[in-house]
Amino acid sequence: MDKPIGVFDSGVGGLTVAKEIMKLLPNEKVVYFGDTARVPYGSKSKETVVRYARQIIRFLLTKDVKAIVIACNTACALALDTVKDEFDIPIIGVVKPGVEMALRVTKNKSIGIIGTEGTIKSETYTKLIHKVDSGIQVTGKACPLFVPLVEEGLLKDSITREVASRYLSVLKEQNIDSLVLGCTHYPLITNILQEVMGDKVTLVNPAIETAKELSQLLDEKGIKSLKLNELGHEFFVSDREEKFEEFAKLILKYKMMPVSHVNIEDY
Amino acid sequence: MDKPIGVFDSGVGGLTVAKEIMKLLPNEKVVYFGDTARVPYGSKSKETVVRYARQIIRFLLTKDVKAIVIACNTACALALDTVKDEFDIPIIGVVKPGVEMALRVTKNKSIGIIGTEGTIKSETYTKLIHKVDSGIQVTGKACPLFVPLVEEGLLKDSITREVASRYLSVLKEQNIDSLVLGCTHYPLITNILQEVMGDKVTLVNPAIETAKELSQLLDEKGIKSLKLNELGHEFFVSDREEKFEEFAKLILKYKMMPVSHVNIEDY
Repeated sequence: MDKPIGVFDSGVGGLTVAKEIMKLLPNEKVVYFGDTARVPYGSKSKETVVRYARQIIRFLLTKDVKAIVIACNTACALALDTVKDEFDIPIIGVVKPGVEMALRVTKNKSIGIIGTEGTIKSETYTKLIHKVDSGIQVTGKACPLFVPLVEEGLLKDSITREVASRYLSVLKEQNIDSLVLGCTHYPLITNILQEVMGDKVTLVNPAIETAKELSQLLDEKGIKSLKLNELGHEFFVSDREEKFEEFAKLILKYKMMPVSHVNIEDY
Repeated sequence: MDKPIGVFDSGVGGLTVAKEIMKLLPNEKVVYFGDTARVPYGSKSKETVVRYARQIIRFLLTKDVKAIVIACNTACALALDTVKDEFDIPIIGVVKPGVEMALRVTKNKSIGIIGTEGTIKSETYTKLIHKVDSGIQVTGKACPLFVPLVEEGLLKDSITREVASRYLSVLKEQNIDSLVLGCTHYPLITNILQEVMGDKVTLVNPAIETAKELSQLLDEKGIKSLKLNELGHEFFVSDREEKFEEFAKLILKYKMMPVSHVNIEDY
């Protein structure tokens, strides 16, 4: 089935997920929406994020998508359960694939989760992990400065390292052996995170696992595209296109498709 | 005239302006709106910020305000000129009062401006200064990490000091003698900014000057309130109330009035 996959995020971070989908499923066309006019979601409330997610899903449905990936941890944590019941289309997120990977990886049963304030406060990761194994110790830590630091381009900077070592100290004290990067921006500072946590801690990037889960879902539903996508992908944003394109080049190395503007509040 | 003054900002920062208005004009009632669901404006485009400003002004008009203060440098820089012509109510901003003060303060005719990306890129400050005196050297510097650092509460932290010394180095090289705090969050890190710039540089906080300009405007129009406001003020936000109240306590030291939620996208 040649309908596209809808992927959305509060901004550019979700491109780290879109990239893994494009790599694993070259037959599929991706329609990406980045809510750059209202980014970031991390410090916003559940009510607000649910309202935003509904508008975006209504927009993606106008693009005739066959499945939707919420490529934003905050939106998954706060809105996925609600919108899943409201719309008649398969919707998956990045949280469950990340949790499953962390459960496979951990040996000492002490898992760390880093994310935005919204993601950590929701305790979505903790609840999902404890559903599978209530004996696992989960330590969540909100890292609100990581997104602005990444967007400022300080990917290998001493300031980012200092901020990271403060945020992560509580996780080191808990002796975690696996750390879930619970925000799509964080894979961009993998080097610093690994350095601060040390070699014995495995970093879990949910983007790769999410692409695998999407592949399974498409198989189960019999809606996988069978021929190579030669038309490229489509990108939409709620703020000006230029800024998005600039940052997107950092993540998607190949030539970007044109990006279009959408008045998302109209949906 | 006992109608209230509308004051708005992208979030909590504008409370530093509201505070000066309440102090200088105790007869006036303030209706404050903080766009916490869409904060920050600093990295968003002109089109988006103009759309947001229009919605907020339409909302404030439902509260029967007699004048509006845009207590957000980004919104002033990107939207003030446009909305001033569109609405039949006096609207003032924080940029012009800040510029006037800087012009009075500078002796060596080298002025620095710090603000968000949107404010600095717009060159609003530079243009206004050069309208008065084209011989003045103006150096603008965007400081996108200051708002998240302030909102993370790192008001006196070594990380904020390190970020500040990087951002401000270009201003020190220009030998500025006055520095305009072109973002309403920045007065909260005055100590660090003064320390990094040294004693010889005067920091200009536009909030105080804005309250004075408002007072003049109300006199000119003959719409100043003549009896003490005993009813208190009103606060509205577009995201959840709790988070706003928490941060507002840092700025407005006295007991806050209750804060109400508004669906700003409906205006």
